[in-house]
Amino acid sequence: MKHVEITVRVRYQETDQMGFVYYSNYLVYFEMGRIEYLRNLGLPYSELEKESIFLAVVESHCKYRSPARFDDLLIIKTWLSKMKNASVEFCYEIRRRDEENLIAEGSTILACLDENRRPRTIPDKIKTAVKGSGLNT
Amino acid sequence: MKHVEITVRVRYQETDQMGFVYYSNYLVYFEMGRIEYLRNLGLPYSELEKESIFLAVVESHCKYRSPARFDDLLIIKTWLSKMKNASVEFCYEIRRRDEENLIAEGSTILACLDENRRPRTIPDKIKTAVKGSGLNT
Amino acid sequence: MKHVEITVRVRYQETDQMGFVYYSNYLVYFEMGRIEYLRNLGLPYSELEKESIFLAVVESHCKYRSPARFDDLLIIKTWLSKMKNASVEFCYEIRRRDEENLIAEGSTILACLDENRRPRTIPDKIKTAVKGSGLNT
Amino acid sequence: MKHVEITVRVRYQETDQMGFVYYSNYLVYFEMGRIEYLRNLGLPYSELEKESIFLAVVESHCKYRSPARFDDLLIIKTWLSKMKNASVEFCYEIRRRDEENLIAEGSTILACLDENRRPRTIPDKIKTAVKGSGLNT
Repeated sequence: MKHVEITVRVRYQETDQMGFVYYSNYLVYFEMGRIEYLRNLGLPYSELEKESIFLAVVESHCKYRSPARFDDLLIIKTWLSKMKNASVEFCYEIRRRDEENLIAEGSTILACLDENRRPRTIPDKIKTAVKGSGLNT
Repeated sequence: MKHVEITVRVRYQETDQMGFVYYSNYLVYFEMGRIEYLRNLGLPYSELEKESIFLAVVESHCKYRSPARFDDLLIIKTWLSKMKNASVEFCYEIRRRDEENLIAEGSTILACLDENRRPRTIPDKIKTAVKGSGLNT
Repeated sequence: MKHVEITVRVRYQETDQMGFVYYSNYLVYFEMGRIEYLRNLGLPYSELEKESIFLAVVESHCKYRSPARFDDLLIIKTWLSKMKNASVEFCYEIRRRDEENLIAEGSTILACLDENRRPRTIPDKIKTAVKGSGLNT
Repeated sequence: MKHVEITVRVRYQETDQMGFVYYSNYLVYFEMGRIEYLRNLGLPYSELEKESIFLAVVESHCKYRSPARFDDLLIIKTWLSKMKNASVEFCYEIRRRDEENLIAEGSTILACLDENRRPRTIPDKIKTAVKGSGLNT
């Protein structure tokens, strides 16, 4: 698995008075992308939390290339770009469906936390799933 | 204490492409109003949750009289209108500062839950604080 | 057309520290439901706004029956319940997929506005589409 | 003017089920900081938009150092770090009131747009206000 794509319809609530999608919403789209990426790895995030494995964002970066608008159908492309001992990095690209033009692109680094919300190493079940998916880490 | 008033500056994020505050945000303003009402009763909601007393909204109602806009300074007026055995009702009015005109008005009913998120009776400390504030219940 | 159903996956962003979907988000789900209802009537809301037909919520009501949680797949059932000269009413029911249990139910009344955001009568194209769909108004 | 500080009370709506402020909300706090920075420069953003001067975020970056929680009083420190021909950069630091510990820090680059949402140079009134405030650009 190289990447996962999901489709998101822009909600009216996500627009602002400039007529564009408000800029913080792209981070929400990124999160939706990585949730589906993890599900495709066989690691539904809701299950991870039940096992006291939390992934908390420690860094985000986004470039806004071209505005998205109400009712647009967006494709969120997500891939896991790096896995370290206690953190993972995901990358994202957002386009309108059937268009090559980039709307936004970005990345997030997530740290692995335990039930006390303290840093812990990435558990083996995640490492194994990621390796099985073909990522060189 | 008859009511509590707080001031909220409308955020750009809260507007939509119609140029108004998006309608679900008024429920967020209502919540901010009741949090400050509780604090004024000597019952900071963050403390209540630490004692496993949760207040969960079971009903909301809002009439949108006139639109609020970006950067408006809104006054959220909140009062406790009813207290039953296991629930409380709050009422709200929203105006622009220094204007009589109503922007929105509404109410919410909240049920009291325990640490397992199951219904429980309103704890005595809340009943006592409310009675001390002069509300006939 | 009696009603329209859409499926929404609960986002992590929509949860709160109580572990439930925060209560204002149901109004966002309602909006998504009516946008798809209008699209099914042949009236994409994005097109209506381009023709200077705005539908602004003037009243909302919601009963929260049972909490929704992160990653739940929710069905939003929407129908047009009333059409007056200058306003329409939509009703909504939210359930988890494959469950009978109600999560939330509610209604919204929307007023029709013109390009100056002033009240106007419901345009004939909407009336005709609604009548063609079998609603007695 | 070197920087502007505003105080923001964390809303219940901004928390997620991990018990922290959801990560996209920091970008909303950043926006609130730069709105007040501009107001302090004598440039209320609502006035700029009326003169068809729009500032749209083209890049954002945030490091999440330590989680913020419900009801925290946060200080958002904002300063203008760069001004180019057609864009400006703001930097931000977020701390809990009366604490040195960083909660989050980041930056945003904003492009100046005209009434057709096309890039334009920064207008003189902004350049003059910024220079008067002591920023070397």
